This record gives sequence, C-alpha cells and structure tokens, in this order.
Amino acid sequence: MARQTISLVTPSATEVTAGSLAVRSRRLTGGRREGVTLVELTAGETTVCVLPERGLGIWKMTSRGTHLGWQSPVAGPVHPSFVPLAEASGLGWLDGFDELVARCGLVSNGAPDFDATGRLLHGLHGRIANLPAHAVSVTLDEAAGAITLEGTVDETRFHFHVLRMQTTLVLSADRPRIAWTDTVTNLSDRPTTMQLLYHVNLGPPLLGANAELVAAVEEVAPRDAVAVDDVPTWNRYVAPQAGRREQVHFARLRTAPDGWASALLAAPDGSHAAGLSWRADTLPCFALWKNQTGLADGYVTGLEPATNYPNARSFEESQGRVVPLAPAASVRFELALEHLSGDRLTAARAGLAALAASPPPQIHARPRPGWSAS
Amino acid sequence: MARQTISLVTPSATEVTAGSLAVRSRRLTGGRREGVTLVELTAGETTVCVLPERGLGIWKMTSRGTHLGWQSPVAGPVHPSFVPLAEASGLGWLDGFDELVARCGLVSNGAPDFDATGRLLHGLHGRIANLPAHAVSVTLDEAAGAITLEGTVDETRFHFHVLRMQTTLVLSADRPRIAWTDTVTNLSDRPTTMQLLYHVNLGPPLLGANAELVAAVEEVAPRDAVAVDDVPTWNRYVAPQAGRREQVHFARLRTAPDGWASALLAAPDGSHAAGLSWRADTLPCFALWKNQTGLADGYVTGLEPATNYPNARSFEESQGRVVPLAPAASVRFELALEHLSGDRLTAARAGLAALAASPPPQIHARPRPGWSAS
Amino acid sequence: MARQTISLVTPSATEVTAGSLAVRSRRLTGGRREGVTLVELTAGETTVCVLPERGLGIWKMTSRGTHLGWQSPVAGPVHPSFVPLAEASGLGWLDGFDELVARCGLVSNGAPDFDATGRLLHGLHGRIANLPAHAVSVTLDEAAGAITLEGTVDETRFHFHVLRMQTTLVLSADRPRIAWTDTVTNLSDRPTTMQLLYHVNLGPPLLGANAELVAAVEEVAPRDAVAVDDVPTWNRYVAPQAGRREQVHFARLRTAPDGWASALLAAPDGSHAAGLSWRADTLPCFALWKNQTGLADGYVTGLEPATNYPNARSFEESQGRVVPLAPAASVRFELALEHLSGDRLTAARAGLAALAASPPPQIHARPRPGWSAS
Repeated sequence: MARQTISLVTPSATEVTAGSLAVRSRRLTGGRREGVTLVELTAGETTVCVLPERGLGIWKMTSRGTHLGWQSPVAGPVHPSFVPLAEASGLGWLDGFDELVARCGLVSNGAPDFDATGRLLHGLHGRIANLPAHAVSVTLDEAAGAITLEGTVDETRFHFHVLRMQTTLVLSADRPRIAWTDTVTNLSDRPTTMQLLYHVNLGPPLLGANAELVAAVEEVAPRDAVAVDDVPTWNRYVAPQAGRREQVHFARLRTAPDGWASALLAAPDGSHAAGLSWRADTLPCFALWKNQTGLADGYVTGLEPATNYPNARSFEESQGRVVPLAPAASVRFELALEHLSGDRLTAARAGLAALAASPPPQIHARPRPGWSAS
Repeated sequence: MARQTISLVTPSATEVTAGSLAVRSRRLTGGRREGVTLVELTAGETTVCVLPERGLGIWKMTSRGTHLGWQSPVAGPVHPSFVPLAEASGLGWLDGFDELVARCGLVSNGAPDFDATGRLLHGLHGRIANLPAHAVSVTLDEAAGAITLEGTVDETRFHFHVLRMQTTLVLSADRPRIAWTDTVTNLSDRPTTMQLLYHVNLGPPLLGANAELVAAVEEVAPRDAVAVDDVPTWNRYVAPQAGRREQVHFARLRTAPDGWASALLAAPDGSHAAGLSWRADTLPCFALWKNQTGLADGYVTGLEPATNYPNARSFEESQGRVVPLAPAASVRFELALEHLSGDRLTAARAGLAALAASPPPQIHARPRPGWSAS
Repeated sequence: MARQTISLVTPSATEVTAGSLAVRSRRLTGGRREGVTLVELTAGETTVCVLPERGLGIWKMTSRGTHLGWQSPVAGPVHPSFVPLAEASGLGWLDGFDELVARCGLVSNGAPDFDATGRLLHGLHGRIANLPAHAVSVTLDEAAGAITLEGTVDETRFHFHVLRMQTTLVLSADRPRIAWTDTVTNLSDRPTTMQLLYHVNLGPPLLGANAELVAAVEEVAPRDAVAVDDVPTWNRYVAPQAGRREQVHFARLRTAPDGWASALLAAPDGSHAAGLSWRADTLPCFALWKNQTGLADGYVTGLEPATNYPNARSFEESQGRVVPLAPAASVRFELALEHLSGDRLTAARAGLAALAASPPPQIHARPRPGWSAS
C-alpha cells in the first residue's frame, strides 16, 4: 500500500456484564497515563471510573449523560511515577491532579509544610492519591442491582508510620449515586496520628455563573486575604475569568439528626445538583475551594470535607486537628456523592434550609484565628 | 538436559515495512531501560531511533554504516522513572543523558536554579526529555519515499503552566537527513514564558583529534573561567583526555538569507560531517559544549541551538532570554540534522565560509557580560 | 449468575525445572509491587527469592520450612518507582526496605548526608537497592546440583560516577546455603571511591528472646547514646517491645586463617542459627542493628558487614573508610548465608569460640571516637 499510519499503542481490556451492571477494566497506555488501570463501573444509567494506581481516586462520574468531574489542564489520569512528590517545592502533587474525588492524606494534607531551614516535611496534600491500591476486586450483585468495588492502599514508612486504607465503594442501579467507606487503620504497635481530606471537584456543566453552594452553615470564614473580598459571595459562582486567583473558605456545617452533613452544588439553572454528604463525626471540617479561572486552566470548585483544614500539618497539629490512632485502632470515613434532580433535589434543599434556618450562620469577614495561620 | 541458561527477558516487537521504508518498534526490558519504547525508522540507508518515553528524544542515527551519536557512560536509554529530577542537587537529569538529540525545556533549561535559601527551583535542563509522549504515530509514504513520525509531549503543572509540544519528524530515503518541527503551544488562559535548547551530541567517529566546528560566527565568548584557555582553539578538538573538564562557548551565528543558521562538525579527516541547521528566528542562541574527557566518561561535543544560553533560568529571565507566549499562542522550532559528505559537504562549507568572510567574527577572550552571570 | 467477584490482576509466570533444581520467575502485580520480578530459585529443600528490580536484593530464603528474613511493615517487595530516594529528608529509602539481604551503596551508605545549608548530598543507604538489574540469567546445572544466578546493576551519573556491580549467586542442593560474589568496577576514566554495606536482616523464628549473636569480637562499641545502655547485653536479644528504639553497635571481628569473618544469629533454643560469613579484607567493618520493637513495626536484627560504618558518607570519608578505585579497577566482595544446625552449627560455634578465646575482646562503654561522629 502506498501510505499507512501506525499507532504505537497496544491496549488490552477486561469486561464483565450482568444485567444492567458492568465492569470494564483496562490498562491505559501512552504518555503520562501509561500503566494506569481504569476501572469503569456501570449500573443502569450511571458510570463511575475508579483509578487503583491513584489511591482508588474517582476520576469521573456520568449520570444519564451528565458529566460530574472537571477538565483539569493536567489531562490525566497521570501515573504516580510522573508525579514528583519528592520535589523540594512540595508542589509536585499538582502534576497529577485531575480527579472528581482525590483523597488527600493519610499522614498529612494541606499546604506544603517546611521545617525551620526550609526543608520539605510534607508535600501538598500528602501521598495517598499517588499510591497504588492492591487487592482490588469488583463484585456484581445482579439480585441487589449493585456493584461493589473493594481495595486497599498502604502508606508505610519503616520506623515512621504503617497506615492502611480499606475502601468499599458501592454503585446502585436504582439511583445516580456512589457511596463509599474508607477505613483507616494504624497497623503499627505505636500510637500515631493521621489526616484525611476529600477533594471533590466539579466543573461545568454543574459549575457556571450563578451556580450555588447550598449548605447548612454554622460558621464560615475566608482562608486568607485573597478570599476576604469573596465573603459576601462565598456561596455563589461567576463565569470563568482567565487569571483569576483561587479563593478558599473554611466552614463548620450543621449536621442532620443522623449525624451526616451535606453540601450541594446547584447548577446555574437550579434544575440539578451534585450532592455530597458525609458522616461529620470523623469529618468535622469543610473547605470550599473556588478556582474561578479560565476554562483552559481548570475552572472548578472543590467541596472538601476533612478531618482538618488544609493548612500545613504543623499548624493543624498545633490546633489539635489530627486524628489520634492507638495501635491497631481504626477510623471510618463515610461519604456519598449523588446527582440530584426533581423530588430528590427538592427534598435535599428543604432539609438543608430547615437546618440553616436558625440560628443564623456566623459569617466572618476576615480569616478566623485558629482556623487559618496568622 | 544437564545444563541450561535462562535469560529472564521477554521482548515483544512490531514491524512494518513498505519498500525501502520500515518502522520497527519495541518495548525494551531489563535494567533502567525497562518500559522504554524504541522506535526505529529506516529509509534507504539511514536509520534513526526515537524515544517516545524520553520526550521524543532522538537516540541514535546511522547513515550508511556511520554512527551519529555518542557513547554516554549512562548506557541508556533510561526510563524517566529512574531519572531523579526532583533531587535537591538539581542534577538528577544527568542519570538519563545519552541521546544524540535531547531537548531541554520547556519551562526551563540550563544550570540548576535555586532560590535564596538554596531550594531547587528548576533542575538542570528541565523536564521535557523525561516526559513521555502520547499520540505517537508513524506514517510510511512509499510514493514520497518518506517516513513521518508525529507525537505530543505535555509539560503541565496545575496552577503553573500548560505547555504542549507537537513534533513532526521526517526521514527521507534519498538523503541521510532528519528534519523536525516542534510546535510549542501555551494551552493556558494566562500568558507564560518558555525556553528550549537542543542538545545535539556527537562523539566518535565524527569527533576526534583535529575535528572542527565550522560555523559563521558573529560573536563568540567563553562561558566561564574554565573555558577561557580554550578560546584560541574554541572550534577545534583534541583527542580524549581522561579527567579533562568540560568547556563551553556561547555564540551568535550569522544566518543564511533564508533565515537558517547552521553548524558543522567536520570529522578529523575532513571527509564527512554532521550538519545541524535551524531556523534562527526562534533559536537565536548557540552554545558549543566540548566534553573532551576520556572515552569511558563520554568524550563528546554538543551543538546547542536554543532560545537562550544554558544558564540558570532566573539569570536568563533577567536578560530577556525567555520566550513569551500569550494564551493559546504557539512558537515553532525547525531543525535538521544531516550526515554530509562529497558535494553536499563542499557546498555547506562554502556557504558558511561566505557568510563568515566579513566582517571578522568578534572573539571575546573572557566571559561576555550579559551572556554569562558574573 | 447472580453474584460474581472479579480480581483485577493478571499474573504471568515462567518455570523451568531440572531434577531437584527449579527456577520460577514472575512479574508481580498490584500495589507497590507492580512491575517487580520475583525470581525464585529452589535447590533441594532450599528456596531463595531474588529481586532484579531491587538491585538483585535477596528477599527471602526458606530452608526445610524455616523462614529466613523478616516481616517488615513495608510488606514489599516495593518497586523502585515508589521509593522516593530524592526526598529532601534523605529517608525515602525506608519506604522500600523489607529484604533479607539489602545492599547499601555503591556511592554511599549510612545515614543521610547533608551539606552545610541542609541540602541532601546522599540519602540513607544509597541507591543500589533501588536500581534495576540487567543481563539477568539463571543457570541450572543438574550434574553439579547447583543453580547460579548472574546479573548486573549499574549506578551511573554522567560527569560523576560510573560504577557497575556484577553479581554471581550460587545455591546448591546439598546444603541450605547461598553464596554470592559482587564485583564492583569503576568504569570511568577517572579514579573514584565507593562504599558497600550488606544489610542482612533476620526476624522470627531465628530472632526472639534469648537469641544470641555469636562472633569473634576484637573490639565493639555502641554507635551512640541510645545504644550505651545495651552494651552489657549487646549480643543478646529480648522479646518484641512496642515502641522500643533501635540500637546499633559497631565492631571489628577476628577473621579465620582463610581471611573470612563470620557471625551467627543463634535461635532462642540454640538448635539452629543463621550463619553469615564474608571475606574480611574487603569488608572490614561490622555493624549490629537491633530493632527490638513490636512485631508489627518490624522486630528484626541486622548483621551488617561493610566497607565502613553506616555513618554519613562525609564522616566516613574523613576517617578513610571509602574504597578507592582507579580507572577500570574492581573490588570483589564475597559472602555466604547458611541455615546452620546439628554438626555444622556445632563446628561453626567452636571455630568462633576458638578465635574469641584470647585476647579478650575490647568492649567500649561509650561510642568510640573515629567510629562514631562525636
């Protein structure tokens, strides 16, 4: 033949289906994706993509054609071997950041932490999102109409820490919702402390001018001087603005009688929302990250329930916001993310409105001492 | 059987041929090569090896039995996961350096750059040579007698930069020459700056005692005190000398009327040469690296057209030698490397001699302020 | 079917047997093991596992059902791409440490070494345990009843060092013993220096309360203040104690007339032992690492013959404890590890007792100047 083009890629794939349930798993190839396994779970009209090599992060979710997630300029998923966590800046984590749900932990999360000489102690957002899972399995339960993914991620340094996260994620055919439980265990013979933050990131179509963050706020404060101007509009969004800096607000939310807290990102036209809920006893802190920059730079907002605020670990430690774990002790984190519309959205908004009604929320005009380092 | 030896390697390979054109691609295994794809393109009597995992670097070229490239002690190609770019020294790049053509960029190239506290800002020669390409394809056009390789390399850090390099490399059956174009695009919504240097490295048989660098020099200066002694012989070479330190000269070259600059490394007997040419509007700087050390340590010379001189980025920035890129803007780099002999060599030398004839080149005896940091 | 579980792992394997000899090699998958080749050699009732990707480290050894090695919390083997050697702390090596025999070198071993500004020069225990081998082959010699594994590991940085280690490891069917030779060559044209330490690590069942280190000591001293209390019991062990700090003793041992030194770790009931022996001319130093912490944190002792004491390289260099290597020169290290019982154990103890009898060993109560940095 006179002219031919050869693509230098050799994909392989596994697929199992059972009724309306399906799991498709394949090893990605090419560029920084090389070696990342993409596990795609489908139940009815909902699909969720899980990334074992990236600490079981949740890459994307699709609900009846609506895409939950965001368009990061990173264009991942990125294999951990291309994420320079050891870089002296402590910012290497940013090279791999493009998931819908990225866990930040387990030893630390938040801003890079340096010692007095400027040497990096803890990089931005820790290591768990760039540690590969093992013992990953998927169960299709056709009778129950549910898919369950289980897996384990270890964050271990000899002499320092032996932390294990065991994840169970469930997707049901009857509802566009993923629910997951992460159990973190201290496998060491010595007591330790840990931190965990869920970086749940949403871009268009849920995010856009006039999108709204709906939550039952007890208290909210800007993280720093950059966020002060945004206090009056802290729960509203503007259209993408090239070059606009990120703004972050810290909050305590009120919990429902069952102990769960929640926050909704309502789409610009109010017709649907992403609803994130979590057990607040183990995730008492909430940060709202508003990155209203241009589309090409990752116009996105992050809903971030956590054990702490995402400051440098040493500051959080000084404020008692680390989780103590005795030898062999565990702590359990439970969350769910749902694409809400119709009656379910109405009910969710009503529930939050009732919680928020009284007393009025305390809105700080300036960073709150104890939450932000001065 | 009484005695058997088992080699623990499992190679796999792809091969497509069309007339005098061929592409052979295989994934290397064993040692630091593990996971590197070697793409070998052959057109007539010329073969070139391209390394997608190493930013589409050009590993080796062979022209009618003559080898262009060098014997680096590194003995690669080395997979990026074994190149510690994050190392505090900023010198980790050296662990993977063994190509004929290694690109240095895209955010920075040159010497490691540290902040005032000694923390690494930019490692030696940047990241592009250790970032893997995606969308790599090869087209065999039998009618045109040409092979074209295309691929894309992204250098992206969320919040910081979103740079993409798209490469098209052409090898023709009628001439021992590779020509390539790299288009670098700022995919961010914000303006940025970038740098690029082509580290084109040649050892024996082209390099040896009495080899000569032929170029039309406008101005040349030693990089530093170590190179000062070499000024009178800056364009001549000696035999390998164990332990001899590297010497570098910085230059501006005169361009041909078509806007291309070129430099030849003429072999010791003058019968053949490696000719490198490039569009000088986007690559205005030229560095000549002379590493006349012992053979085992990598006796080699580097012809280095670039956007800047290979000093630390902060110095180059202070001199205006970074390339500004508006949002969505691109800059295009074009180069060619040819194995010259006979009439083509005679013509190339004549062209350079004419350009060089007058006015005489300005040869600085000491480092030139503004080119070298004092 | 109503319910099914899919494990997302695809192992592959190679196996060759010849009489009582066998080699089984497979690429591990899942978690931080992904990409590690496990080469299992069996001769008679002895099995040894070698790790090419971890510098030909010896992971485990089994002798007639007795396990030699230890249960590191790291739960490896860990692929080097998950071991952050470049981390500013210099402690990233600990993320991958779980072998029976881990080599520490070749440029350096010992504590992290920093320059005056606090920038890392050499990380803990160097790079060789996290560099992949090439040219790995296994020979089954049925007539001789022996398996030989050979391989090469390069530690190379352009401009800095070009070191090659060639390993030959032999396992015989007639004896539960592995013997290996490492030849380290300076492939550079310039003189260099190197270091090597063998971190031979044993946990239960050989280690336990009342286990004993048997050696012919010329001189022994605690490494630091933490080890001072342990001087009277330096060669005895206690049961695991959660949170107990590691203690290290430095020693010179007496050599047998054939130039070999040895040390035995005798099991608590004295019925069997691990016997390590080595040619002392190239490995003159010995460190005993006692990590009598809880089982979950890696209760283990390390027998460590070396070219030096495991202090920061700059201190060792000041004491002359680096190995000079002229261009093209080699140095040869020979060791053997045997599971001893019955007559062989009796003879080994008797030999050591004779050597130790007189003069009495010199036991320092405090760290010895020149061995430990003050």
